[in-house]
Amino acid sequence: MSHHVAATAVALPTQPYKGTRDFYPQDMRFREAMFNVLHRVVRSYGYEQIDAPLIEPIELYLAKTSEEIVNQQIYSFTDRGQRQVAIRPEMTPTVARMVAARFQELPRPIRWYSIPNVWRYEQPGKGRLREHWQLNCDILGAPSEKLADLEILLLAIDILRSFGANESHFRVYVSHRAILNAVLGDELKLPPEKWLPVARILDKKDKLKPEAFVALLEAEGLNALQRAELDFFFIEKLDYLKKKYHLAGAEYLLELLAELQKLGVGDFVEYDPGIVRGFDYYTGLVFEVFDRHPENRRSLFGGGRYDNLVSAFGREAMGAVGFGMGDVTLEDFLRTHQLLGDVPRSIDYFIALLDEKLAVAAMELAARLRAKGRKVEVALGAPRLGRQLQEAERKQIPRVIILGEDEVASGRYSVKTLATGEQKSLTFEEL
Amino acid sequence: MSHHVAATAVALPTQPYKGTRDFYPQDMRFREAMFNVLHRVVRSYGYEQIDAPLIEPIELYLAKTSEEIVNQQIYSFTDRGQRQVAIRPEMTPTVARMVAARFQELPRPIRWYSIPNVWRYEQPGKGRLREHWQLNCDILGAPSEKLADLEILLLAIDILRSFGANESHFRVYVSHRAILNAVLGDELKLPPEKWLPVARILDKKDKLKPEAFVALLEAEGLNALQRAELDFFFIEKLDYLKKKYHLAGAEYLLELLAELQKLGVGDFVEYDPGIVRGFDYYTGLVFEVFDRHPENRRSLFGGGRYDNLVSAFGREAMGAVGFGMGDVTLEDFLRTHQLLGDVPRSIDYFIALLDEKLAVAAMELAARLRAKGRKVEVALGAPRLGRQLQEAERKQIPRVIILGEDEVASGRYSVKTLATGEQKSLTFEEL
Repeated sequence: MSHHVAATAVALPTQPYKGTRDFYPQDMRFREAMFNVLHRVVRSYGYEQIDAPLIEPIELYLAKTSEEIVNQQIYSFTDRGQRQVAIRPEMTPTVARMVAARFQELPRPIRWYSIPNVWRYEQPGKGRLREHWQLNCDILGAPSEKLADLEILLLAIDILRSFGANESHFRVYVSHRAILNAVLGDELKLPPEKWLPVARILDKKDKLKPEAFVALLEAEGLNALQRAELDFFFIEKLDYLKKKYHLAGAEYLLELLAELQKLGVGDFVEYDPGIVRGFDYYTGLVFEVFDRHPENRRSLFGGGRYDNLVSAFGREAMGAVGFGMGDVTLEDFLRTHQLLGDVPRSIDYFIALLDEKLAVAAMELAARLRAKGRKVEVALGAPRLGRQLQEAERKQIPRVIILGEDEVASGRYSVKTLATGEQKSLTFEEL
Repeated sequence: MSHHVAATAVALPTQPYKGTRDFYPQDMRFREAMFNVLHRVVRSYGYEQIDAPLIEPIELYLAKTSEEIVNQQIYSFTDRGQRQVAIRPEMTPTVARMVAARFQELPRPIRWYSIPNVWRYEQPGKGRLREHWQLNCDILGAPSEKLADLEILLLAIDILRSFGANESHFRVYVSHRAILNAVLGDELKLPPEKWLPVARILDKKDKLKPEAFVALLEAEGLNALQRAELDFFFIEKLDYLKKKYHLAGAEYLLELLAELQKLGVGDFVEYDPGIVRGFDYYTGLVFEVFDRHPENRRSLFGGGRYDNLVSAFGREAMGAVGFGMGDVTLEDFLRTHQLLGDVPRSIDYFIALLDEKLAVAAMELAARLRAKGRKVEVALGAPRLGRQLQEAERKQIPRVIILGEDEVASGRYSVKTLATGEQKSLTFEEL
């Protein structure tokens, strides 16, 4: 191999596109260990994996995804056939599309999951990147809305518990879209067209200064009495619901919390009227999972019920509930609480060559070991032995088979364990 | 759940974007079974998995990817920050970028693999889609070019053999870029600037009518004598090489073929001077794997040596060889030769409910079974038992636990095996 400095006039940049990550082998090992837990848990509940194209027609997101995503964050462009398309910013509309396409054939309830990469044009920051992978779990067409909601919450909790997390690490805050609408309509007497804009303001409550929050509500025409009722609603929480259990959604949510208690996960769950969720398609249960670490109290992921999304594809309405769990925040959560750390390489042998002529013999030996389930790297050249041992060590390979002519002739191999320096002579069967 | 016909004025389309596929659970199971073999084989050789963002700066492809891809097939657009970006049409430039970014730190040789989705604006047809997944395997920085080339060919063969394919199913056609250049330069005496355009014509030889092929060569200034020499080169194949082993690359390729013979895979490999490969970055070995099915003689995948790609990022040249194997052609190959067929679902139990009030008990039982490694779906409602049994059958779940109050009280469960209709009463331990 010749080594010369490149003649290229301008070198190409080596960093990945802004707000995205390269996954080197050690990054991939972590991601794989993390995803393996996700696969294992969701499959134990009977969820079946699906996948879909990265690109969808832009219309899929215009109707029901949030205004913020569509106007400011979506990656969209015109293809060579003049179609307006988007790189998916989320998976839920695609799930609804796929269900609608086989509406009659699919046995119900449908339990699907996927781990797609999704794209949003974000200002990159902690826990916020332009590309992330997202576990999506969805139940569609269940006979009982409450049992589906129960299972989805249980599943979300179980996933985090499977990493070793407990009540001190995270909490699931739940609410119901109907409750807020009932408060806005029945209690505040706001006309329906005001519900969505007011809900959006409430969703941003924690990010706003109190004066700014009040100003926005005033701009939507809310008077002091109406704002005071909202204050009660937010401060009294569960007591407000118990007093006003006639409000749509209130009784349902109280029952759901009672069942979660019976299932032994009551301590993981809390009612929070402030949980609204950004997507316009939510219709019932909404929830958001928060990290409880004192220095990291932020939203990990969330989900909710979206009963009107499948019908956007010309089908009958179909009950649906699901969540999306992003890999960036999950990794951050797992590392912060030391629930998952760096994952070592899994590899058995390195075959070092005392002479390049022995390469074919080494490749044959490697093939025999691989047939027995071993993972084996072969030296691709015969520099001096010290360099080859160093290579094996830098590559985290625990054992080196040193292949010389004697070994090939006798069928007994010198095997060096790098951690101890111990060297043994072993037959193939002993390897 | 209320069922009403959707009020949406215009229903959204349910089909996926042109030239792409939705993966329903049965499609995913096939893909996963296929990918599991890929993961297993390449890991047994010590290849480490990497991944990278879907989007790259367009410059990454302008220099070295083929003209056809960049001008007619790449998905490119301007992002909200006025950057010209592309959805990756292939993975190799990204691999080179990532190696260049950590040029000093990475222990060599680097053996990396990935299974990214890649995008090309193709006219969709058999084996040709706009989105496909592609196994990429690469060796960079090996001390011996020949050993790296040997291993890459062996790996490509081993992957197909691991699916049960043999010499009757596929063949690897190999050549060397230097040979063609030497024939064009030393034998035909063409100036270097003619090599690439002539190579591109030769690459399309099989797709062109003979007259059109001759006309294109004439247009590049090739006279009858020069075209006759090319004929010898193409018709005599290995004999031509043996006669002209002084040509750059000829001796190397003859040696490589001899070593493959020693490794017992000689019957899988054949020299074919017509193998050129479309990418401009190839510098040495090039190869292409063909299906040998009489009605399906087409290219499955290919690869080659690209020693000048890492240097495009301002680094020293680094020897590199690799291949990219697409999932669409691989699936087609496996199904045509009946090496891999539909994969059944893996699920153990369905818990049917005689009363919706038993849902919490069912979820608790499911949790205990899952803790023992079982995969369990719970009924999300209590329609009549016949419908629940039907649901389990349509979902390919082999056994149904029928849960009534007696079962919950006694801890003995009625279990029905759907295939036989047999019903047993079992304790939890017996489950």
